[in-house]
Amino acid sequence: MEYQLANRVSSLKPSIIREILKNSSDPEMIPFSAGNPAPEAFPVEAIQEISARILKDNPILALQYNLTEGYTPLRNTLKQYMASHHNSFREEQDELIVTTGAQQVMDLATKVLCNEGDVVVCEAPTFIGSLNTFRSYNCVLKGVPMDEDGINLEQLDKTLTENPGAKLLYVIPNFQNPSGITMSLEKRKGVYALAKKHNIMILEDNPYGDLRVSGEHLPTIKSMDEDGIVIYAGTFSKVISSGMRVGFAIAPKPIMQKMVVGKQCSDVHTTVWSQIICDEFINHYDYDGHLQKLVEIYRKKSTLMLNAIDQHLVPLGITHTKVEGGLFVWCTLPDSIDMLTFCSEAVKRKVCVVPGSAFLTDESQPCQSFRMNFSTPTDENIVKGVETLGQLAKDMMA
Amino acid sequence: MEYQLANRVSSLKPSIIREILKNSSDPEMIPFSAGNPAPEAFPVEAIQEISARILKDNPILALQYNLTEGYTPLRNTLKQYMASHHNSFREEQDELIVTTGAQQVMDLATKVLCNEGDVVVCEAPTFIGSLNTFRSYNCVLKGVPMDEDGINLEQLDKTLTENPGAKLLYVIPNFQNPSGITMSLEKRKGVYALAKKHNIMILEDNPYGDLRVSGEHLPTIKSMDEDGIVIYAGTFSKVISSGMRVGFAIAPKPIMQKMVVGKQCSDVHTTVWSQIICDEFINHYDYDGHLQKLVEIYRKKSTLMLNAIDQHLVPLGITHTKVEGGLFVWCTLPDSIDMLTFCSEAVKRKVCVVPGSAFLTDESQPCQSFRMNFSTPTDENIVKGVETLGQLAKDMMA
Repeated sequence: MEYQLANRVSSLKPSIIREILKNSSDPEMIPFSAGNPAPEAFPVEAIQEISARILKDNPILALQYNLTEGYTPLRNTLKQYMASHHNSFREEQDELIVTTGAQQVMDLATKVLCNEGDVVVCEAPTFIGSLNTFRSYNCVLKGVPMDEDGINLEQLDKTLTENPGAKLLYVIPNFQNPSGITMSLEKRKGVYALAKKHNIMILEDNPYGDLRVSGEHLPTIKSMDEDGIVIYAGTFSKVISSGMRVGFAIAPKPIMQKMVVGKQCSDVHTTVWSQIICDEFINHYDYDGHLQKLVEIYRKKSTLMLNAIDQHLVPLGITHTKVEGGLFVWCTLPDSIDMLTFCSEAVKRKVCVVPGSAFLTDESQPCQSFRMNFSTPTDENIVKGVETLGQLAKDMMA
Repeated sequence: MEYQLANRVSSLKPSIIREILKNSSDPEMIPFSAGNPAPEAFPVEAIQEISARILKDNPILALQYNLTEGYTPLRNTLKQYMASHHNSFREEQDELIVTTGAQQVMDLATKVLCNEGDVVVCEAPTFIGSLNTFRSYNCVLKGVPMDEDGINLEQLDKTLTENPGAKLLYVIPNFQNPSGITMSLEKRKGVYALAKKHNIMILEDNPYGDLRVSGEHLPTIKSMDEDGIVIYAGTFSKVISSGMRVGFAIAPKPIMQKMVVGKQCSDVHTTVWSQIICDEFINHYDYDGHLQKLVEIYRKKSTLMLNAIDQHLVPLGITHTKVEGGLFVWCTLPDSIDMLTFCSEAVKRKVCVVPGSAFLTDESQPCQSFRMNFSTPTDENIVKGVETLGQLAKDMMA
């Protein structure tokens, strides 16, 4: 049979990251291409305890259907936490639901707000998973370049002016994936003001916010949301467990009503066991202490990688962004080295990095950058892998 | 802010079932409206054992990111099982992925195959969750009436002839939700032949197939799929645990490649813990014995409800479909009783049933039926609830 596919998927390709991830199952490969939390970051003992307890005390609760909006105790916990710790939940304006990872927040926000052909504005580069979600709804993507302190506001104003019906402005203000860049407080305010001026909803994705290894915590854009124009995506993937698939969305009530209906149509509800684990862990364990432990893990790993880059890559003219947290460093090659050749040669030398063009709205645009991850590889391999990349750059320049 | 919602959701309402489910948290209510497996149907002890073991022996596997396609051992288990038990997986033609419940199979199949405005043909009545998924892609729904042995083939042929570009034919051949009807072997062959003739993909949803309490097992439509025109949706929601959210899809490879990309955009992957539990349970426990136990549970409950209906409702002119398995009985009121009034009066008497119109492609069509579920209520409440409905019908006829 000759299959007739929907327009929305006929041009959609598997994400390069996921494809590379498959190949990186080679145990010899140093996985700078990954985005996995460090294995030591998962609170294994606590999860063992909680899981045994809930399956003993209330197994049917964990195994039976539950509400689409999420497990009620976890929703209440998150509402309180996001209000008290981040000033990012307004009882009278917002609603909060649990999602199957933060990826589902992007999916539901797009489903609810974007008709086919609508414009989504985002940072360039940005997270490929979200780009593909927007593409899967046949949205038109408009990328806005970034400065060292976040998205360029003049370019953003220009893009929003040129696209008056644009529906969503997608940003990752903290330790952005892939660039590692953190948006300054001034720019957060500027982004909010421009969104308000141009009557566009902001989709704020904050998977790494708790993983700040240096500098001061900055307020979320959602905390400024007096006007009900921000949808916030949170997740436990980086701080409790990725495999559990628990994220959450905060959105103004009229938007959230439709997101709930969208979630009914997508997967009915999120795994209950995972939701109870998260709720119990936050409430009955030392959650702040756990986050502090993660920060120490990633401070060590990021420092190790940045020092190795300073030692082996910077002298060759390879630059990197300033990284205050998260999981990624963004490196840029001098013009004398072809980026795609560099990345494929690196794989041959058993080091896997992600070509920067994968994160652009238009992959065919020129790009000299690649993304490095420091959470997945061992400390030893961080040093070894950067050395290998330095040697490769030297060889390619010779 | 005045929110501008996407066309696909602006008319989409929360499913009546989910809304009723919320109200049915009233512990006084007899929940004939539900669709939850009986609590005693979950293999609690086995899940306790497996969970403790995997979190002890290989916690990082359960807690880390995994592949979008699903946990490889579970995929292999399911391929073998579906090939050997149901002749429903062809190595050279098909691929199998794990999904977040069977609901996600409907979502991904529609995402991959249907442009906005494309026609989806389905049984009338049919599962409201799937109807809403099709609606969420702005599909046009065409319902085909059912006979006692399944969809009416003449009407189906006529509908497919009148809608030559129709993309999906959605059927639930076993113990259909909501009608309880089982499609005969002859009709399964007829449906396949008509789909082939009209060049349309079949989406076969089989959540209840293992729950046959009488009569002979019939082959799946997927088992007839020499031409690669059937997408099959399976789930563990009724046989291991609903709250775990594990389903699976089998589809021809070119379709499945795109479904995988669609799933990347939706939720990256399904909860790993849940997938490992299912795999271990099938391979290392008495899965066939467990299914037999479920059949015994539901044979008892369905017999109890059907006997009560025969005693209290049939003498009043209320008819019901022949039920050989699954979780539901479909009852039809005589014309002298207004169906919607009957259902809302029943709630006042603490018995919750689902108005049949909820399951139609056009809810405003006349309908005298309502859906009854026998898996969720206690045995005592099955008898008590049917008695109450009988008294209500008597009062309304008086």
